[in-house]
Amino acid sequence: MEYPTILIENAVNEISKLPGIGKKSALRVVLKLLKEKPEFTDSLAEAVQKLRNETKYCRICHMINDTEDCTCITPRRDTSVICVVEDTPDIMAIQHTAQYNGLFHVIGGLISPIDGIGPDDLNIQSLIDRIQNAEYNVKEIILALSTNMEGDTTAFYLAKKLKPLNVKISTIARGIPIGGELEFADEITLGRSIVKRISYDLNGD
Amino acid sequence: MEYPTILIENAVNEISKLPGIGKKSALRVVLKLLKEKPEFTDSLAEAVQKLRNETKYCRICHMINDTEDCTCITPRRDTSVICVVEDTPDIMAIQHTAQYNGLFHVIGGLISPIDGIGPDDLNIQSLIDRIQNAEYNVKEIILALSTNMEGDTTAFYLAKKLKPLNVKISTIARGIPIGGELEFADEITLGRSIVKRISYDLNGD
Repeated sequence: MEYPTILIENAVNEISKLPGIGKKSALRVVLKLLKEKPEFTDSLAEAVQKLRNETKYCRICHMINDTEDCTCITPRRDTSVICVVEDTPDIMAIQHTAQYNGLFHVIGGLISPIDGIGPDDLNIQSLIDRIQNAEYNVKEIILALSTNMEGDTTAFYLAKKLKPLNVKISTIARGIPIGGELEFADEITLGRSIVKRISYDLNGD
Repeated sequence: MEYPTILIENAVNEISKLPGIGKKSALRVVLKLLKEKPEFTDSLAEAVQKLRNETKYCRICHMINDTEDCTCITPRRDTSVICVVEDTPDIMAIQHTAQYNGLFHVIGGLISPIDGIGPDDLNIQSLIDRIQNAEYNVKEIILALSTNMEGDTTAFYLAKKLKPLNVKISTIARGIPIGGELEFADEITLGRSIVKRISYDLNGD
């Protein structure tokens, strides 16, 4: 595609490097920027640069934060459970369910030999340190990783690595989604949901 | 949606003001920016600010340009025909067809009383000046505007306004798109394509 000016071409190239934005969408963005007042572009540019330069990561749980001290230090939460996730959006999704009141630990990726990511590239040692620190009194680790090859590999590695530390290790349940029809479920999920079936506790409350 | 930090919230808000990008896509962009090196964000911010601050518009045809002198001044093109379009993307689309070698004139919008846009907000006077300037020797004006109410209103207004200037006025053909099936064509287009049918010139070359 030929662009009318070099400035437009440069801007389209930069914007289309962002996820989910192709050249055509980038051109629409460019034309919008040209149509709006210069302040519109200024506040966009300022917001992304501030984001990049001033975002901090908690030194304990590696969660994104405005400061280096985050919710994992406040005592409002159940500090005996740590939920291990790949990245910040997973935390947001879990928080959104309002079903979890424990702490988090962001490992920052998944083991993937193809992409050259090994266990040493992830925040695993700091997780071990947290568990071993008697002050934190950690009793359970919940693995909440994706159900793909990389997620399963990482979960398996973590389970083996954390086994000697004397904590309970669990993983989020896999199965047919609520509202999902059996007919359309994939075979692997359906098979696993039968093998890992949950007993009704008829004596419970 | 609750965001982990104020910096992320601000960036998501700014990015989601762009066309075609919702809050979820904006969050994906934010996480990408945080994952890449700071230079990635810097060159994005620089490109959009340069675009906004340094883009010029040709003072004759109002086309976007790196300088104030554009192709409408170079003699490589047929200067006797001017194609009137709404905005720059339309020029790019027409250029892309490689079927037009004349000049352009960007009116910068369409007449739309609902949005408070009247004829005085468009680059119409400068079009009249171009036609009246004997030096340019303009013979034909092609109206290439959208086929919606605003486009038709603007075309009608222009046709009336330009009538006394003694130039040929034409509009791009409306009809069934090439490759389009009659069965699926909308009634209005099909009806119009019958009324405005084109005679076969069997004696032509």
